[in-house]
Amino acid sequence: MKKPRKIIIDTDPGIDDAVAIAAALFDERLDIRLFTTVAGNVSVDKVTKNLLKLLAFWNKGVPVAIGSDRPLLREAINASDIHGSTGMDGYEFPKSKYELLTKNHAVIEMYKVLMESKGKTTIVGIGPLTNIALLLRIYPECVERIEELVIMGGSLGRGNYGVLSEFNIAADPEAAKIVFESKIPLTMVSLDVGEKALVLPEVRDQIQKMNKTGDMISQLFHYYRGGNSDTGLKMYDGCAIAYLLEPEMFEVKEAYVAVETQGMLTAGATLVDLDGYLGNATNCRVCVDIDEEQFREWFLEAIQKCE
Amino acid sequence: MKKPRKIIIDTDPGIDDAVAIAAALFDERLDIRLFTTVAGNVSVDKVTKNLLKLLAFWNKGVPVAIGSDRPLLREAINASDIHGSTGMDGYEFPKSKYELLTKNHAVIEMYKVLMESKGKTTIVGIGPLTNIALLLRIYPECVERIEELVIMGGSLGRGNYGVLSEFNIAADPEAAKIVFESKIPLTMVSLDVGEKALVLPEVRDQIQKMNKTGDMISQLFHYYRGGNSDTGLKMYDGCAIAYLLEPEMFEVKEAYVAVETQGMLTAGATLVDLDGYLGNATNCRVCVDIDEEQFREWFLEAIQKCE
Amino acid sequence: MKKPRKIIIDTDPGIDDAVAIAAALFDERLDIRLFTTVAGNVSVDKVTKNLLKLLAFWNKGVPVAIGSDRPLLREAINASDIHGSTGMDGYEFPKSKYELLTKNHAVIEMYKVLMESKGKTTIVGIGPLTNIALLLRIYPECVERIEELVIMGGSLGRGNYGVLSEFNIAADPEAAKIVFESKIPLTMVSLDVGEKALVLPEVRDQIQKMNKTGDMISQLFHYYRGGNSDTGLKMYDGCAIAYLLEPEMFEVKEAYVAVETQGMLTAGATLVDLDGYLGNATNCRVCVDIDEEQFREWFLEAIQKCE
Amino acid sequence: MKKPRKIIIDTDPGIDDAVAIAAALFDERLDIRLFTTVAGNVSVDKVTKNLLKLLAFWNKGVPVAIGSDRPLLREAINASDIHGSTGMDGYEFPKSKYELLTKNHAVIEMYKVLMESKGKTTIVGIGPLTNIALLLRIYPECVERIEELVIMGGSLGRGNYGVLSEFNIAADPEAAKIVFESKIPLTMVSLDVGEKALVLPEVRDQIQKMNKTGDMISQLFHYYRGGNSDTGLKMYDGCAIAYLLEPEMFEVKEAYVAVETQGMLTAGATLVDLDGYLGNATNCRVCVDIDEEQFREWFLEAIQKCE
Repeated sequence: MKKPRKIIIDTDPGIDDAVAIAAALFDERLDIRLFTTVAGNVSVDKVTKNLLKLLAFWNKGVPVAIGSDRPLLREAINASDIHGSTGMDGYEFPKSKYELLTKNHAVIEMYKVLMESKGKTTIVGIGPLTNIALLLRIYPECVERIEELVIMGGSLGRGNYGVLSEFNIAADPEAAKIVFESKIPLTMVSLDVGEKALVLPEVRDQIQKMNKTGDMISQLFHYYRGGNSDTGLKMYDGCAIAYLLEPEMFEVKEAYVAVETQGMLTAGATLVDLDGYLGNATNCRVCVDIDEEQFREWFLEAIQKCE
Repeated sequence: MKKPRKIIIDTDPGIDDAVAIAAALFDERLDIRLFTTVAGNVSVDKVTKNLLKLLAFWNKGVPVAIGSDRPLLREAINASDIHGSTGMDGYEFPKSKYELLTKNHAVIEMYKVLMESKGKTTIVGIGPLTNIALLLRIYPECVERIEELVIMGGSLGRGNYGVLSEFNIAADPEAAKIVFESKIPLTMVSLDVGEKALVLPEVRDQIQKMNKTGDMISQLFHYYRGGNSDTGLKMYDGCAIAYLLEPEMFEVKEAYVAVETQGMLTAGATLVDLDGYLGNATNCRVCVDIDEEQFREWFLEAIQKCE
Repeated sequence: MKKPRKIIIDTDPGIDDAVAIAAALFDERLDIRLFTTVAGNVSVDKVTKNLLKLLAFWNKGVPVAIGSDRPLLREAINASDIHGSTGMDGYEFPKSKYELLTKNHAVIEMYKVLMESKGKTTIVGIGPLTNIALLLRIYPECVERIEELVIMGGSLGRGNYGVLSEFNIAADPEAAKIVFESKIPLTMVSLDVGEKALVLPEVRDQIQKMNKTGDMISQLFHYYRGGNSDTGLKMYDGCAIAYLLEPEMFEVKEAYVAVETQGMLTAGATLVDLDGYLGNATNCRVCVDIDEEQFREWFLEAIQKCE
Repeated sequence: MKKPRKIIIDTDPGIDDAVAIAAALFDERLDIRLFTTVAGNVSVDKVTKNLLKLLAFWNKGVPVAIGSDRPLLREAINASDIHGSTGMDGYEFPKSKYELLTKNHAVIEMYKVLMESKGKTTIVGIGPLTNIALLLRIYPECVERIEELVIMGGSLGRGNYGVLSEFNIAADPEAAKIVFESKIPLTMVSLDVGEKALVLPEVRDQIQKMNKTGDMISQLFHYYRGGNSDTGLKMYDGCAIAYLLEPEMFEVKEAYVAVETQGMLTAGATLVDLDGYLGNATNCRVCVDIDEEQFREWFLEAIQKCE
């Protein structure tokens, strides 16, 4: 059997992060070496608490390193209107396991995992890219130790935070610019794909009865406003894990992707240059489409694998 | 019978402008009072020559006023790679009728038509918006005399000139900003709609045999690269005339639309704020979709009406 | 005797504009063919009224054309806190002579004067550059008919409207950009020079008793806050006329001058590139210093010449 | 006797950095706990080598931590045309003492010194502010441990790297923005002051014969182009040390200082808002003038104190 893929998950949970984390924790093809947290959906304190609650819920012992409490240059965005005041309201979790917290900042711990692991490690970034940008600036030698960076973020056209900008990129456009220009093997799971990765009402009913995880997620969904409970909830972050495990579910194109950091109205827009307007070499593999049925099946199987 | 609608067409022909002009000239529901030209697809000299050739071809006597030879702030774009070196290669036209040229600049002539007409006049802008912006700045009183400004320009997401920008807006973003902020009753026929307004191969064959105009346009199409001759040619500018005549063909939404003038990569992007991210009152009616079959029928009828 | 120099004065009076206008009207070396007005210190209506009052006061019959009521792209600035609510409070003027008003917009009248005069004409721009930018865009052929454009505006470093921006340029940076890139023979009378062109308390006393004009200006000075009544009032606009008449009073350097239109904090800053950082050919003669004593003498003589 | 002030020097030597380092190393009022290096005048490798050479020259054992090899967002600037190919050509130095190099990155070492010292520590930043910005983003708790941050950088008006921008800020405007917005007690030793901190020819002759250090610096000066050897060499970085030791030499004003990061031509300009245009609370003490004679005396004494 193939060895599980070593990954670091950089996250700001968040309900759809919780789904992604569940799917990753219980899939034996993945070996999560570290979680790092970043301000995004809500403050870094809250998202770290959420993560620790989830790990206590599943009784999983992966180390957790706290990362950036704010974007590189801009003010922090508060998205608690979308995710509830804690970012993960709607379920009564057991007491968090604070002993999982590392002493060091996320950037230092990422560096250690990357440098000390045998072989390369993949990073999955499902929040703003602040931590990863700081890692690249302090430890540029890490570029050689990253097998792939899979991010959930950016869009081909229209956005979900601004007219033309997706939340994770718009929350820290300068960090995203650093990441996209870093020459890391990079895969962008776009908003466009996330918007098709729907959990429909009948699927919610199915998972609720499946197991403890299905029940918990199902309850969180009542508070999640990434989509409409009738027409489907959008599993943005789950797509990043789906991509790791079953990339054939996605249509992927190589492209040069740039991030606008200067516009008055468009800062945080990604320019996915499929047509070569900008004349630059490709720097990213972009998921431009998803097989919705295959995602639905994967999602059900992923929850089935959980406790 | 209803009186024909008085219009001014501001244009940079260009092959798809030629289609729009044909459709407008031969439809009795429209009364074209003035053509104005603007640098866009190619230089203002070339587009004016093209327009005069077309009018000579049809032996139509509408006055023509030459407008801006360059954008307000930026360097002129040369799009002759798309439209051929004259902007309208591919047909041997009769001698141009220079006597149609007015003495005055487009802005002055527009002003006269607007102020001297009984009732209000509609402007159809199917090139960059430089002339109209200058009109608004020199003669702000015109705002009251414009029934509607229908523009072909802007996009909901992805572009055809830059990753996120449509040609007519990107050619002069500052002019577009002036127009969108002007409080004129404004309708934006978007790129998204234009890309669905296709002339398919069989339709081209049909119009070729229809009449002199069909034959001419059909020949021009060999040089037009707005689309693919197999999968269909995109009648961007024709949509603006179609909208004037048969608006029910379009799905229209009210929205606030802003133009990015500051981005490094996104200047010229339109932000069609359907979801209220920017918190401003609507300033535009935006054509967001088109009934493709209805367009096809309209197009055939429009050419049928020509000589 | 040398023929008087034909000039057009584009202005937004304003107290220091009044001084400049007095100096120009009563100097036989200048032949003012046209005044044009522009929104600046206060609205274009107010500045036009002010100009008409001044012309009535002196009983001078120069035609006046009303120009732009707002900047090209940005919102109008209201500087009535500096100039009083009319922009020229503090003196009871006779009734304005509205018959001086031309029928046409400032841009059209400028164009006529430029094209119909024998030889070239000089423009003196002592307000925001909106009118001149519009002239250049609608009638680019005018460039050949302008002998020199002398502007009061811009600074070498620090500003008087923003930290690094001077009022006339900051009021319409895009217009300024058009003007500086126009290839007109251009002279910039900088803020730095204007700040040394002081009217000291003893000089104010001298002119008060000199004649009717001296008395009027002296009274206006009580309301003028361009400087400090003890340490001296700054005759920014007067410098532009002083430059026309006695250029040897100034230290002038050729430089490339650019205007920042994109900065968040610096839009409207002029970059006077004396050291060649930007690597462009010179486009402007910049007054970098002034002989303060010579200015003082000129000022006294100029008022002496008035009625 | 007062305890010496604990400082960290963040530097990119560079000839004028060398002068500053000499003055700091041999003054008993300062206790240098750490040197950190940053790409600036030349690459971080070169500046680190230069620093190690200097420490070997003086046989001083202060630890050295290597910092950022490039700015946060922008491409690195190469200023080797000003400083020679090594950044410190012109003297044959002894072998560098590599054993001074710390294992960790500058940011980590700064953090340790700040957190482990008894009481607060002052940072002297005489290069681009990249390291300090990264420190603030990874370890925001450091803000409380910094007594003062004294930077050499920024200008009141005109620049030495761009028309309106000083080199250290323009090299990494985004880092500077982070620093200026950090609420650290901040003092800016401006370019304006540095340009008056001159070493005149006679002073160079004096120090050459003074001691080993004076001889070395005097030889380096032949390669330094920060000024003119006849009219004086500008001791930009030396001013930061002079400020620490003899602040009364400077005229200091409290002001809000902002950094432009968005302009096309002005990115890296500092806006020293002495007149309150921006309406923000002060965040910086700005050295706006210097007593040139006092600086000269201090400089001679400082070199005299060296070996």
